[in-house]
Amino acid sequence: MADSRFFAVSGPFTLAQLAEISGAEIGGDGDPDMKFSDVSALETAAKTDVSFLDNKRYVDAFAQSGAGVCLVHPSLAEKAPKGMALLLSKDPYRAYAKVAQAFYPNAENLGDVSSHAVVDPTAQLGDGCVIEPGAVVGAGVSIGARCRIGANAVIGTGVEIGDDCVIGPCASLTHSVVGKRVIIHAGVRAGQDGFGFALGPQGHEKVPQLGRVIIGDDVEIGANTTIDRGAGPDTVIGAGTKIDNLVQIAHNVELGRGCIVVSQVGISGSTKVGDFAMMGGQAGLTGHLKIGTGAKIAAQSGVMRDVEPGATVAGSPALPAREHWRQIATLAGLSKKKGRGTE
Amino acid sequence: MADSRFFAVSGPFTLAQLAEISGAEIGGDGDPDMKFSDVSALETAAKTDVSFLDNKRYVDAFAQSGAGVCLVHPSLAEKAPKGMALLLSKDPYRAYAKVAQAFYPNAENLGDVSSHAVVDPTAQLGDGCVIEPGAVVGAGVSIGARCRIGANAVIGTGVEIGDDCVIGPCASLTHSVVGKRVIIHAGVRAGQDGFGFALGPQGHEKVPQLGRVIIGDDVEIGANTTIDRGAGPDTVIGAGTKIDNLVQIAHNVELGRGCIVVSQVGISGSTKVGDFAMMGGQAGLTGHLKIGTGAKIAAQSGVMRDVEPGATVAGSPALPAREHWRQIATLAGLSKKKGRGTE
Amino acid sequence: MADSRFFAVSGPFTLAQLAEISGAEIGGDGDPDMKFSDVSALETAAKTDVSFLDNKRYVDAFAQSGAGVCLVHPSLAEKAPKGMALLLSKDPYRAYAKVAQAFYPNAENLGDVSSHAVVDPTAQLGDGCVIEPGAVVGAGVSIGARCRIGANAVIGTGVEIGDDCVIGPCASLTHSVVGKRVIIHAGVRAGQDGFGFALGPQGHEKVPQLGRVIIGDDVEIGANTTIDRGAGPDTVIGAGTKIDNLVQIAHNVELGRGCIVVSQVGISGSTKVGDFAMMGGQAGLTGHLKIGTGAKIAAQSGVMRDVEPGATVAGSPALPAREHWRQIATLAGLSKKKGRGTE
Repeated sequence: MADSRFFAVSGPFTLAQLAEISGAEIGGDGDPDMKFSDVSALETAAKTDVSFLDNKRYVDAFAQSGAGVCLVHPSLAEKAPKGMALLLSKDPYRAYAKVAQAFYPNAENLGDVSSHAVVDPTAQLGDGCVIEPGAVVGAGVSIGARCRIGANAVIGTGVEIGDDCVIGPCASLTHSVVGKRVIIHAGVRAGQDGFGFALGPQGHEKVPQLGRVIIGDDVEIGANTTIDRGAGPDTVIGAGTKIDNLVQIAHNVELGRGCIVVSQVGISGSTKVGDFAMMGGQAGLTGHLKIGTGAKIAAQSGVMRDVEPGATVAGSPALPAREHWRQIATLAGLSKKKGRGTE
Repeated sequence: MADSRFFAVSGPFTLAQLAEISGAEIGGDGDPDMKFSDVSALETAAKTDVSFLDNKRYVDAFAQSGAGVCLVHPSLAEKAPKGMALLLSKDPYRAYAKVAQAFYPNAENLGDVSSHAVVDPTAQLGDGCVIEPGAVVGAGVSIGARCRIGANAVIGTGVEIGDDCVIGPCASLTHSVVGKRVIIHAGVRAGQDGFGFALGPQGHEKVPQLGRVIIGDDVEIGANTTIDRGAGPDTVIGAGTKIDNLVQIAHNVELGRGCIVVSQVGISGSTKVGDFAMMGGQAGLTGHLKIGTGAKIAAQSGVMRDVEPGATVAGSPALPAREHWRQIATLAGLSKKKGRGTE
Repeated sequence: MADSRFFAVSGPFTLAQLAEISGAEIGGDGDPDMKFSDVSALETAAKTDVSFLDNKRYVDAFAQSGAGVCLVHPSLAEKAPKGMALLLSKDPYRAYAKVAQAFYPNAENLGDVSSHAVVDPTAQLGDGCVIEPGAVVGAGVSIGARCRIGANAVIGTGVEIGDDCVIGPCASLTHSVVGKRVIIHAGVRAGQDGFGFALGPQGHEKVPQLGRVIIGDDVEIGANTTIDRGAGPDTVIGAGTKIDNLVQIAHNVELGRGCIVVSQVGISGSTKVGDFAMMGGQAGLTGHLKIGTGAKIAAQSGVMRDVEPGATVAGSPALPAREHWRQIATLAGLSKKKGRGTE
């Protein structure tokens, strides 16, 4: 049971409702009219809770769980304890996500513009927006319906935000055009001018940065991440891409649709990343690269060359992952041999 | 002498008082009634200043210092210049910390709630709290005695904070329960929902994050560090743990007591770290690991496996440190040999 | 053409004016009285636009560009298409920077102190300052002429800022002395007390941090970067140094003049860096090092030893770059050999 100071639970839902919400099929000892009041982990779930099994490592916990109903892949259904109802799904974690969203929907937006927010008279706010205390909304801003602008966030002059977006507390957004259903977490910095200088011993001359940040629908951007605006072209984050905390995205970078960018990744200027590429934590990419569709970049990699679609790379400098791991094994072998010789 | 625009000095203190404050013993040419008015480095200290020697590299500076009194290990006392009073301590840096705290105590909290702060009427503030201008304190928040909430900080709905805490300017805290004497620096983001998705080509489905952030007593969290709340269980920072700037702590991570986490470290989801473990700068830990009590993780390591209590690991992928350094030496040797052959 | 919601274009300028602004010489089919109204990339530029060629990779785009005038090195002038006016410069990117600055000057500072800002009555503001809504300016602060303090930024007690500075939204600055023409981007944290503890099993004792942050003229500091104040001495950023986003600079660090610090670099306590040194993205430097004038540190390096003036280092642990790359090649060779044997 989530802490009620922070979370309000909806429901209860019948098993039939949960099946519809999750797209799963009722199995086991399931009665469509049974009612469930919360979600919980396998170990802590009670008779009125919904749980899920997504990882074979937890089959034992599943077999002993007290959950009233469990989302599970059909192939593991036979491991269920007696008396447990089942919701059979080929993607039980996604099904759980849907169920948990139903029990814990986003806080309702109440259409409340705080008297402690500062909204420029030329800004346009859609129906049902919440503007929290201390938020500053600049001239010419356009915000869609049902958005929430967090406390002490700053929306700079001319920024455009689509419907159903959430901007976290203390975030700042300038020179940006944002799609629908975008979540921008606390402390994100988007749209500031990037690191562009004509370098030289007589001083580094600042090059005006005249592009924007374009953020597609359904994007999520983690806390304290930074996204610089383009230098002339735009910096682009494709629809459905999810970016974790403390990531750096430089000017002119283009991320495709559905990419996953884990925490503390850094992407240098003008690099283009294809759809559904994945970047592990602390990976770094130099500038002007092309990363293919569906490429996978391992954590802490240092990518200095283009990556083919579907390829997996690892290491610094990054190599095809198999090559990288063979090198790791080669060095370990040589080092042991040498060690034996000298000890 | 610290810049008086920023720091107010207390004192003076007699040598006897300083001995009591620091737990050190008077030695050298020390007269208990001598008065001292400030702290200073060995090179710059004058007759009325307290200095310290903590590192043998600085014995020469100690031998030539003009400091009136110096905190020093008994074994180095004989190197003192003539006329210098001594405060003998087996841990002179800790003793110096105590003395410097006496000369420069924290700014007094004046019990002042700025008329430019926005405090929800249902929030409870302990005695002697300072709420600086622009701070936003949400509904149902509970703040202990003598806390300071920095300018433009945001304390979200329901958050609980113990006595004697300091929250820096522009920090944001949601879904969190905070102990006593906690210092949260400027721009920290704690309690936002972490990077939890059911991934897939049809789009990445957001999984509601229903846990909290639990921060123990005497924790310090550096500027712009991010700590996501738990997905179901809580994210936990143990008592006395010190976290540097720009660190990423993912959902469900548990840090034990007294850990040291240096700047730009990233810890992935559900990893558990034992008491008094130390993580060097820019180290990365993958998810679901167990790091033993007192383990040491070298800077820039990439930890992909559990680490035994007391072990030291280094490299990416991380190995027992001795093995890592042997591999480094092996490769250097082979490369030199090869180089000689081809040049 | 930059998005007019975010950028206001000046001009038009004649070719003669552009030559004077950029220090370039008129060449090609250039008539000094021709007028130009904007800047644009080679591919998109029209007859009334100014473009530039800085990289030989783009000679083809230059040869086919529709730009009315192009900044170009004299040695490449012969590749220009017919009818294009030229502005000949030995440093065309710097010349472009000057031209772009002329077309897109910084927003004028209107001398407007928002009624929604909180400025302490003892703070001194120079002529023509803009203080945006939600900004908090503390007691005893001194701000020079024509500065802009961004929305929801916090300037702590006693801070001194020179003329013509820009402080971004949501930045916080304490215990700092800032020069002229300094740009501090959104979310920067400067002046908080650094990571200073007397470590030990009985608890980590906080050591008061009594120094300041000193920022020279013409410095730029990227979004969400953190700079801790000195422990006793000051933390110093030399004039003309440019720091990217999400960089960590620890207490007592001294950076010389004209340094380049790319995103996500971390510099540990008390390290001194010479003038015009360059640090690639995600590089880490341990504490108490000396980095020589003009040294180059490759991206993701882990620097654990002093670096000679003018040297280039790479790898983790960092080595002279040539040695590092030879080791990389050696390992690749050995691994291939081994691979052939086992496959």
